[in-house]
Amino acid sequence: MQGQSQQQAYDRGITIFSPDGRLYQVEYAREAVKRGTASVGVRAEDGVVLAADKRARSRLMEPASIEKLHKADDHVGVASAGHVADARQLIDFARRQAQVNRLRYGEAVGIETLTKNITDHIQQYTQVGGARPFGVALIVGGIENGEPRLFETDPSGTPYEWQALSIGSDRSDLRDYLEAEYEEGISTDEALGLALDTLAQSNDGELSPEGVGVATITAEEGYTERSNDEIESILDDHDLLATEGDEGDDADTGEDADAGDDTDESDDES
Amino acid sequence: MQGQSQQQAYDRGITIFSPDGRLYQVEYAREAVKRGTASVGVRAEDGVVLAADKRARSRLMEPASIEKLHKADDHVGVASAGHVADARQLIDFARRQAQVNRLRYGEAVGIETLTKNITDHIQQYTQVGGARPFGVALIVGGIENGEPRLFETDPSGTPYEWQALSIGSDRSDLRDYLEAEYEEGISTDEALGLALDTLAQSNDGELSPEGVGVATITAEEGYTERSNDEIESILDDHDLLATEGDEGDDADTGEDADAGDDTDESDDES
Amino acid sequence: MQGQSQQQAYDRGITIFSPDGRLYQVEYAREAVKRGTASVGVRAEDGVVLAADKRARSRLMEPASIEKLHKADDHVGVASAGHVADARQLIDFARRQAQVNRLRYGEAVGIETLTKNITDHIQQYTQVGGARPFGVALIVGGIENGEPRLFETDPSGTPYEWQALSIGSDRSDLRDYLEAEYEEGISTDEALGLALDTLAQSNDGELSPEGVGVATITAEEGYTERSNDEIESILDDHDLLATEGDEGDDADTGEDADAGDDTDESDDES
Amino acid sequence: MQGQSQQQAYDRGITIFSPDGRLYQVEYAREAVKRGTASVGVRAEDGVVLAADKRARSRLMEPASIEKLHKADDHVGVASAGHVADARQLIDFARRQAQVNRLRYGEAVGIETLTKNITDHIQQYTQVGGARPFGVALIVGGIENGEPRLFETDPSGTPYEWQALSIGSDRSDLRDYLEAEYEEGISTDEALGLALDTLAQSNDGELSPEGVGVATITAEEGYTERSNDEIESILDDHDLLATEGDEGDDADTGEDADAGDDTDESDDES
Amino acid sequence: MQGQSQQQAYDRGITIFSPDGRLYQVEYAREAVKRGTASVGVRAEDGVVLAADKRARSRLMEPASIEKLHKADDHVGVASAGHVADARQLIDFARRQAQVNRLRYGEAVGIETLTKNITDHIQQYTQVGGARPFGVALIVGGIENGEPRLFETDPSGTPYEWQALSIGSDRSDLRDYLEAEYEEGISTDEALGLALDTLAQSNDGELSPEGVGVATITAEEGYTERSNDEIESILDDHDLLATEGDEGDDADTGEDADAGDDTDESDDES
Amino acid sequence: MQGQSQQQAYDRGITIFSPDGRLYQVEYAREAVKRGTASVGVRAEDGVVLAADKRARSRLMEPASIEKLHKADDHVGVASAGHVADARQLIDFARRQAQVNRLRYGEAVGIETLTKNITDHIQQYTQVGGARPFGVALIVGGIENGEPRLFETDPSGTPYEWQALSIGSDRSDLRDYLEAEYEEGISTDEALGLALDTLAQSNDGELSPEGVGVATITAEEGYTERSNDEIESILDDHDLLATEGDEGDDADTGEDADAGDDTDESDDES
Amino acid sequence: MQGQSQQQAYDRGITIFSPDGRLYQVEYAREAVKRGTASVGVRAEDGVVLAADKRARSRLMEPASIEKLHKADDHVGVASAGHVADARQLIDFARRQAQVNRLRYGEAVGIETLTKNITDHIQQYTQVGGARPFGVALIVGGIENGEPRLFETDPSGTPYEWQALSIGSDRSDLRDYLEAEYEEGISTDEALGLALDTLAQSNDGELSPEGVGVATITAEEGYTERSNDEIESILDDHDLLATEGDEGDDADTGEDADAGDDTDESDDES
Repeated sequence: MQGQSQQQAYDRGITIFSPDGRLYQVEYAREAVKRGTASVGVRAEDGVVLAADKRARSRLMEPASIEKLHKADDHVGVASAGHVADARQLIDFARRQAQVNRLRYGEAVGIETLTKNITDHIQQYTQVGGARPFGVALIVGGIENGEPRLFETDPSGTPYEWQALSIGSDRSDLRDYLEAEYEEGISTDEALGLALDTLAQSNDGELSPEGVGVATITAEEGYTERSNDEIESILDDHDLLATEGDEGDDADTGEDADAGDDTDESDDES
Repeated sequence: MQGQSQQQAYDRGITIFSPDGRLYQVEYAREAVKRGTASVGVRAEDGVVLAADKRARSRLMEPASIEKLHKADDHVGVASAGHVADARQLIDFARRQAQVNRLRYGEAVGIETLTKNITDHIQQYTQVGGARPFGVALIVGGIENGEPRLFETDPSGTPYEWQALSIGSDRSDLRDYLEAEYEEGISTDEALGLALDTLAQSNDGELSPEGVGVATITAEEGYTERSNDEIESILDDHDLLATEGDEGDDADTGEDADAGDDTDESDDES
Repeated sequence: MQGQSQQQAYDRGITIFSPDGRLYQVEYAREAVKRGTASVGVRAEDGVVLAADKRARSRLMEPASIEKLHKADDHVGVASAGHVADARQLIDFARRQAQVNRLRYGEAVGIETLTKNITDHIQQYTQVGGARPFGVALIVGGIENGEPRLFETDPSGTPYEWQALSIGSDRSDLRDYLEAEYEEGISTDEALGLALDTLAQSNDGELSPEGVGVATITAEEGYTERSNDEIESILDDHDLLATEGDEGDDADTGEDADAGDDTDESDDES
Repeated sequence: MQGQSQQQAYDRGITIFSPDGRLYQVEYAREAVKRGTASVGVRAEDGVVLAADKRARSRLMEPASIEKLHKADDHVGVASAGHVADARQLIDFARRQAQVNRLRYGEAVGIETLTKNITDHIQQYTQVGGARPFGVALIVGGIENGEPRLFETDPSGTPYEWQALSIGSDRSDLRDYLEAEYEEGISTDEALGLALDTLAQSNDGELSPEGVGVATITAEEGYTERSNDEIESILDDHDLLATEGDEGDDADTGEDADAGDDTDESDDES
Repeated sequence: MQGQSQQQAYDRGITIFSPDGRLYQVEYAREAVKRGTASVGVRAEDGVVLAADKRARSRLMEPASIEKLHKADDHVGVASAGHVADARQLIDFARRQAQVNRLRYGEAVGIETLTKNITDHIQQYTQVGGARPFGVALIVGGIENGEPRLFETDPSGTPYEWQALSIGSDRSDLRDYLEAEYEEGISTDEALGLALDTLAQSNDGELSPEGVGVATITAEEGYTERSNDEIESILDDHDLLATEGDEGDDADTGEDADAGDDTDESDDES
Repeated sequence: MQGQSQQQAYDRGITIFSPDGRLYQVEYAREAVKRGTASVGVRAEDGVVLAADKRARSRLMEPASIEKLHKADDHVGVASAGHVADARQLIDFARRQAQVNRLRYGEAVGIETLTKNITDHIQQYTQVGGARPFGVALIVGGIENGEPRLFETDPSGTPYEWQALSIGSDRSDLRDYLEAEYEEGISTDEALGLALDTLAQSNDGELSPEGVGVATITAEEGYTERSNDEIESILDDHDLLATEGDEGDDADTGEDADAGDDTDESDDES
Repeated sequence: MQGQSQQQAYDRGITIFSPDGRLYQVEYAREAVKRGTASVGVRAEDGVVLAADKRARSRLMEPASIEKLHKADDHVGVASAGHVADARQLIDFARRQAQVNRLRYGEAVGIETLTKNITDHIQQYTQVGGARPFGVALIVGGIENGEPRLFETDPSGTPYEWQALSIGSDRSDLRDYLEAEYEEGISTDEALGLALDTLAQSNDGELSPEGVGVATITAEEGYTERSNDEIESILDDHDLLATEGDEGDDADTGEDADAGDDTDESDDES
């Protein structure tokens, strides 16, 4: 391990290793991911659930424009955490890959194949000079040959498959919660409850329907984003529903909730 | 959070992250936006209102040449704040995108689609080396399928949808004002009053017709810039009309009103 | 606002913002403009007048070779201040744009269109790496649809329209003079007197015919440079004519009058 | 040998030699290899065995997604240690080379030829500027003309042929063990036992079936990855089977087992 | 004006302005011009005279190989001062431009047009990165429409027209001499005497035929270099002829006369 | 000669000279050559002998994979010292050049021509930016028009012809030995003995058959690598044969024999 | 003139001028030339003589491989001093130019034309970034229209014509000798004696036939290198022949005679 002054000498350029074999720019990009609000993915027996913290920084902002959940193809959804504009680039890349696969092979792209297309793309930005790495992590979930699959991409370009995971702020706590609570073979509905429960851990145990996004991907229905009413009903069922007054507080206490003001926080991470 | 000397080490190049995951050049570009005079956007039930502070730095300058409001297509208007020359590049990009859409699909481009085309373009300048980010924020407003839509683009390349927003100087105060005063379902005329009222907050509560620009976008009339007479009449109605003597003062007190002189202020932000 | 040592850290490269959102290289290019001798533009009811300080640094230099006034097209004139070689590039660019317009659309290019073509070209040099900004400002004047128009381009690439303006050295004083003396609706002849009067403010109130260039652009006669005799006559009418002895003094007292000598002043700004 | 301050002067760029003729970036990339979990290769009389430490950092992570063993062609397997995303690039390169060979010459690529294709590719990244070296080492094993062959590639791009070797963490200890225990002429089954025995040296002498990957390449069966059941049975035979409780401990004690948390360890090396 | 330490910060790269708007690399290139031996140009009523200091650094060097005077076309001559190899590039450029003009338009290129072609070429090297400016100044003289014309190009790329001028070492003194002695309407023969007289000012009032080059360009005879005998006769007529012994001294006292030795002076400027 | 702090200023980039006219990167690349184990070349009357120190760093490494001797064409052999991966690039380049020669001219390439092709290739990497020089020296030996020829290439790209030479570690001592012992007109068999004798100088006067490689190139037999048995027999004849126990010691004492361990020595030079 | 610390600031990049107008990298390249052994050129009435110091650094090195004299075409010879690998690039360039001239114009290239082709090529490497200048000087001699011509090229890209000159080490002393001894109109044989005499000045007045190379270019015989026997006979005639014992000393005392050893001298300059 290096002292601080030495570390500084090796973290300015993406294309160099530090003496102990680390790529600091990639590690700093992981910090950008942690600055974003959390997203959670849970694999159920018959589908995949994606849930994301979407609290707005102002009551005038349209919650729908806070992009945390994305449909990549009929059978593939993606949740992101970190630099929003970077996420959009990777989502677009994923969509094009999915389309190309349909055109070239006449069938839906595999979830693993798609994930690895994305991570290979990410890796290029960590090895070749002239660009910075992507400051975003993705949860890629979908149905492949009838089976639910759930993957993670990180700023180094490494693909991992998970039963359940979280990315973004409070990642470590949320994963502890998931490791304790997750059980194999749960239904999509149960997974949906677990995902919201997990997300609520970093919100004092409560969520408002407008402050959260939820999508399920099943073999029957493909990618489906849930309406505010559905979310409210689920939150109520799980005793996670925030009271009116809480919602405003959430927006103020969130780390990157109001970054566009005179404070020096960036507002492009959510 | 970093100390000052450490921050300096990571903000020289656009393509690197700081150890806490921040892109300083993008954050500095946001400061360029704050150095520009304010623009306001308000979404009404039947249209969108854009208003901009256009105070000239000299009585000899043609107010019409202070470019803060732009027609991007028949049904789309854009207001800007920050580096004027950068704004022109993005407006031109937006216009070409709108034309291409008409040619390729035979229909008007969607407001959201257009906004995301712009933000993807902006994002490229924050990741790939050899250029600086755009030092400008835009309000993109228009009619899509009969519905008014109102978006913001920031220097990171993130798109947000708003009911009402402000960009440029005094952004935080003006947003507080909008959050307090805005109500859903207001008419375009009411929105017009609110927009000017908000803009006047950073001008001692008064505006001169020559120092402000106003445009509305409605399904019926598309993008329409209001004449000085119309603006004067509206200002008068809202008790916002500056007296003759005030106008000259405004020009002198404005932060970037006279940047071309021997002072060291830049004059390309308005 | 930054302290001096911090400022130095952000002004070496064109492609980066300072922490307070400024582009120092563009601001330094404005200083190059101020190092050049003054040019003045005045819009009259029926035409535009351009006048420029052309004092030579030696009696052996041909005054005609001091390029401050340029014909861009039959109906468009350009006056410059700052780095002469840079000005030539922009003038050539303007001429090609005017020719292309005639060839493509069969008509004369609009003054506003031409100005914005130029400023867009200038902006590119402030955002993309590998080049410095243009160290020159231009006054673009001409007739568009029978109406006189008068524009300014600055090193940031921002276009402004004026009734009357000055660029180059003593800009602030000359503009004060113009703001005090200019009246709308004056004739081209009156504008010509005002332009020379303004220029004389930075020359002890006197000008010699050889040390000044004057051009008018009217709908009837297009771009016309005035002969020395005409200029002498106008100067005499306005009591601005320098005595023989004064002329030589002017050449010595001028800031950039003799930069090619062993002094360390550059001689390429006028 | 250089003092520390001098060393620092030569290790920032890949394209320069230090005064004593070393390429520090390549040496640092070797450190990245050592940060990854171990892989072992053993050549038997009739085949090659590859074994890899695949301990997951969370019970929710799918062990199958920890990529340490790869099929490059029917008759070629590759085990990796170090930066996972870099390994994927080299594996893809190897697969394309194998396919090209089949298409161009109508026969399977030779193991030595393939290895040298890979190392030449690696070398380019150590000599030409604008990129960093690959932070990964590979074990390439396969059948060539009926004979088992076993090669190593390192970050400098040097190919070596081995009878048995290990790469990644604890390399030095594991090689000592192999040198002591390996005997020429052993069968593939014996080699399989030796490989797991070696791997267990850095795991307190025990392995869990989920935490290890095993592949054999023989002339008859080509590349074959062993199932968890087979691995469990072999581990049991060799008295290497970890008890249930041990498995969880392993995951915690592993150096790079939980790098995604709030600690500052990277999680992309395995 | 900047202090010394600050100046140093802005003069390393050609593509940046200093805070007071200067391009230091261009100014340093002017110093390279001053390091070269002097050249003089004088415009007469019926022709142009070019004269250059060509003292050799050794008696074994062929005077003819000291390139100070160049024929660019039948009717155009060029004298240079500064970096010899750079001068050759610009002369070649000028010759190609002259040939292209003949081929394209069937007529001789204008002196002003040719000069501006050269200065535009020079300007490119002062704005775009990756190259240094040309370290040479040129005197371009010739006949255009029967009229003699005389121009100067400097390292900034600015064209000037003169009646008489000098470039290179002692420029300031020689120009003072020319300003005092030059009279309009002199004949080419008189101009020839003045040119040599001026050149002799920086040589103790004496010149040797081998140490000076003279060319005239007239409408009748075009570009003509004078033979040593002619030069000797003219020098004799003007009482400028050096005695034998003086010539050797000249070679030793010349600033750049013997730069190839163990001294640290460069020998490529003349 | 420079002081140490000054030297450091000039040795960072390959493309610049130091004030005393040296290219430090090329000199550092020569150090990389010295870090490699020795190779020896001896020219006999009827052939050329190449011998190389090939001691392995582990008993499990296949000696055949330690690449020190290469067949470039039927009649050309190459021995290398220094960076192995760089050597492979140059050998491949040499092979392609030999093939091209056969295809284009229908005959075997000349040894001198081939060597100069290689050195020209090497020189490019020392003058043009963006790459480091090759860290390897080669001995190129072969038969040209029936005559044996023996050349050296070094990192500067200079070709030398020798009667006998050594490259790599202990170069100076081995050359002294060769200069003392070599006699013109010796047979290939005698040369073979001398080559091994020389190599043994840096190994306590002993060699093991596995730790050395030998090749001869003669007009009759072309390039031929000798088998271990032949080498053992020759070593025995010359009383150079190491005892069993010595061999293991050699491997440990060799400078770069075990560089892959936790020591900080690089293992890519041999 | 600059102090030492200031000089250091301007000599790192080839593309910038120092404040006093110097190109330090070009001057440092001249130092590389001085580090090479001397070459001499003498122009006679009927031919040109080239002579070069070729002392080998080892008795085993083939003197013929020390490249100081080169045939560029039938009628053109080149002698070099400085960086050998750089010289090879320029010689190859010269040969291609000579061939192109024959193909394109059907005649032998002129000596002056060829020299200027070379110097223009050299100049490019001093102005455009990304490469260093050539560290070599050339003497180009030959017959043009029956007349002997003798030129020099230096690292700045300046061509000079000489009656007699020397390049490389001891240049200043050898030129003094030539200036004192050279007489116009001498025969080629006399010139040959003078060339060797001059070369012997830096060798204690003695030369060995193996340590020197001599070539003559005459109209009748073109380029001819002299055999060792001829050289020995000439040396004997001029009383310059070294005794046997001296020859070995020469090799040791030569500055760059043994640079491949553990000393820090480079061996690629001769």
